[in-house]
Amino acid sequence: MSMRKTVADLHNELVRYNLVAWTAGNVSGRVPGEDLFVIKPSGVSYDELTPANMVVCDLDGNLVEGEHAPSSDTAAHAYVYRNMPDVGGVVHTHSTYASAWAARGEAIPCVLTAMADEFGGEIPVGPFALIGDDSIGQGIVETLKGHRSKAVLMRNHGVFSIGKDPKAAVKAAVMCEDVARTVHVARQLGEPLPIPQDDIDRLYDRYQNVYGQRSPR
Amino acid sequence: MSMRKTVADLHNELVRYNLVAWTAGNVSGRVPGEDLFVIKPSGVSYDELTPANMVVCDLDGNLVEGEHAPSSDTAAHAYVYRNMPDVGGVVHTHSTYASAWAARGEAIPCVLTAMADEFGGEIPVGPFALIGDDSIGQGIVETLKGHRSKAVLMRNHGVFSIGKDPKAAVKAAVMCEDVARTVHVARQLGEPLPIPQDDIDRLYDRYQNVYGQRSPR
Amino acid sequence: MSMRKTVADLHNELVRYNLVAWTAGNVSGRVPGEDLFVIKPSGVSYDELTPANMVVCDLDGNLVEGEHAPSSDTAAHAYVYRNMPDVGGVVHTHSTYASAWAARGEAIPCVLTAMADEFGGEIPVGPFALIGDDSIGQGIVETLKGHRSKAVLMRNHGVFSIGKDPKAAVKAAVMCEDVARTVHVARQLGEPLPIPQDDIDRLYDRYQNVYGQRSPR
Amino acid sequence: MSMRKTVADLHNELVRYNLVAWTAGNVSGRVPGEDLFVIKPSGVSYDELTPANMVVCDLDGNLVEGEHAPSSDTAAHAYVYRNMPDVGGVVHTHSTYASAWAARGEAIPCVLTAMADEFGGEIPVGPFALIGDDSIGQGIVETLKGHRSKAVLMRNHGVFSIGKDPKAAVKAAVMCEDVARTVHVARQLGEPLPIPQDDIDRLYDRYQNVYGQRSPR
Repeated sequence: MSMRKTVADLHNELVRYNLVAWTAGNVSGRVPGEDLFVIKPSGVSYDELTPANMVVCDLDGNLVEGEHAPSSDTAAHAYVYRNMPDVGGVVHTHSTYASAWAARGEAIPCVLTAMADEFGGEIPVGPFALIGDDSIGQGIVETLKGHRSKAVLMRNHGVFSIGKDPKAAVKAAVMCEDVARTVHVARQLGEPLPIPQDDIDRLYDRYQNVYGQRSPR
Repeated sequence: MSMRKTVADLHNELVRYNLVAWTAGNVSGRVPGEDLFVIKPSGVSYDELTPANMVVCDLDGNLVEGEHAPSSDTAAHAYVYRNMPDVGGVVHTHSTYASAWAARGEAIPCVLTAMADEFGGEIPVGPFALIGDDSIGQGIVETLKGHRSKAVLMRNHGVFSIGKDPKAAVKAAVMCEDVARTVHVARQLGEPLPIPQDDIDRLYDRYQNVYGQRSPR
Repeated sequence: MSMRKTVADLHNELVRYNLVAWTAGNVSGRVPGEDLFVIKPSGVSYDELTPANMVVCDLDGNLVEGEHAPSSDTAAHAYVYRNMPDVGGVVHTHSTYASAWAARGEAIPCVLTAMADEFGGEIPVGPFALIGDDSIGQGIVETLKGHRSKAVLMRNHGVFSIGKDPKAAVKAAVMCEDVARTVHVARQLGEPLPIPQDDIDRLYDRYQNVYGQRSPR
Repeated sequence: MSMRKTVADLHNELVRYNLVAWTAGNVSGRVPGEDLFVIKPSGVSYDELTPANMVVCDLDGNLVEGEHAPSSDTAAHAYVYRNMPDVGGVVHTHSTYASAWAARGEAIPCVLTAMADEFGGEIPVGPFALIGDDSIGQGIVETLKGHRSKAVLMRNHGVFSIGKDPKAAVKAAVMCEDVARTVHVARQLGEPLPIPQDDIDRLYDRYQNVYGQRSPR
């Protein structure tokens, strides 16, 4: 199953962009056409991830295949897949700047064209929720359903991002930290200038419909 | 055409100096003696750039050669080449500290001798402009024509830098982020001391005329 | 003795996570079943560390085996091993953000779920103590004995972290800097929201008892 | 001449510790027993430095050997060698945090034991001086002669550090940026606690006389 390789490899992007320390971050990907997803094993270092040691779970988060326990964040990933059928990838990190906004419970305002492109507006804050049941998953879904943003800042915790596939979710995680840092730095010495809402709308619309290689090869 | 290799390789410098996240940044180079320039393909990751997948455009930004669509910033690059005949290279990034100044719409004051050397004074702010037509290109050219600075902070957006060739434009992008960061850090704990204008002038004049290897080999 | 290799290799993690500059940081590991520990040699660069040039000391910090002098922090490590029999690994760094909290003599408040997981509450401050006798070791032990935190911010100095083995102590050092940075960044633009004490307790209890691979292979 | 290799290789440390952007930083080393020193060629990138393309100058800064022009900072290095006979290595950088203190013209206060060890007190500020004659060299020597610190923050410019050999000067440059950053971060959220002068004296004395491998092999 090549989703195992996709998910294993994408963890390298979390490392490359400094989104994770030790083992604190994970990627998952829905298996196309099946009620299953592939996710990082719990407590295994990024250096040791291979397609073979990835874990497969059903949409209730139960282990279906794999020699390791699934990530401790599996319940949250599973809840998202159950409740957002268009989502094909989920990423969780404690990336520094995004988590700092999350610690204050403050949404990141849309003051960069790159934010308008990728997130279509502010990056919102989700509720404080404890690990162990569906609370985190519910917080993610309630915040992101019907929202343009593909990332949510879970209060006092970190970031969850979603995408049509795992790569898109990783991109959202990378861009979330990038804009979280730039807007933080901007605000350290004053107030960023706002972007008018209709310009945000135009940028978001264009980026979603025009950007990138139309016929990838 | 060796400009393809030059432009492909120079993207490595954007990565090395942490000026770019995901695919958000691009280098172009004018083809000597022709009304053409080479630019990054759109939405392709830096790891995958090769001389072969670079894209060639005419000075109106139309695709002339290449299997991929050109960078979504091509219109801005093309406008600069059309209107600034001495420019042989253009670079665009959303580098963190420079973009933070841009988000506040604030020029970077010249309080470092390295800034006086490279930029001859402050790094100016260009207008807010939407992607999709010549607005960004016009903003760059209006701001940089007749200005010593080889870099402009486009409001709420990021940096465009120019040079006699693509390497010089990349150098300006690297130095712009470097001084944007140092001056930011300096201002976090007080006011940097000013450098008198005539000292800035002397430093700029010397650096443009004396520095480096006169007969490179 | 494989503890030599474990300790030598773990220094790579200090480098990877940017916790150390030049030679300013060290890892040690207790030799199972013996009153000995392995520690970094003094003043040797991280590139040059090998199992063979690690140094073995007794629990009074006397050199037992090795061609180099032991780390100048050996007395502090030895004091911890003498007085905390459950500790199997000790790490010392001057990592930037943690040392900044230490320079102000300020504990890091527990405002992130990752802190509650790993440290069970705030990361405490230990006394100012000079190198050269048992003062630093005493400060570490007095602060950490009976405390959930596995890391202490020694005033105007840096971090000491402990663990059941050297890898756990390195993990605590990595996580200490990670949360020190995130909470610092959060506080730069306002006040982080508190996490209620009973939620901290629940998170800590769960993480200590449930997280990771139960039967590592 | 092995000093060529030593000086060429030490530039890798400037890169490794992020002390330099593009070509803005240089190392030199006095040739033992001769009135000569080896220095980086001007405008050559760090990737391209080899023992063969290093440049040899006399103590007036005149080119004695080499196919490239010497670093544009050669006059400052030469002035130090002429006027401080015990100095065997000089390093210049625009490292971010140290240059930020320099932009404000503010000495870095000694609030970390690592600073007391390495610098014996604050890191002082030197005058604003233009490149092109002996002004920079004079500012360095006037500030560092009789001072414990091996590094000086040249106003609105950057850092010069000295040592008994080039490696010691590079270590001082690395540690200068490290403490400049940590003290900056500490001060962002309040005032660091002072270290009493006699404790600084004890730490400095011990470090200069006791630390490291006494008989290096």
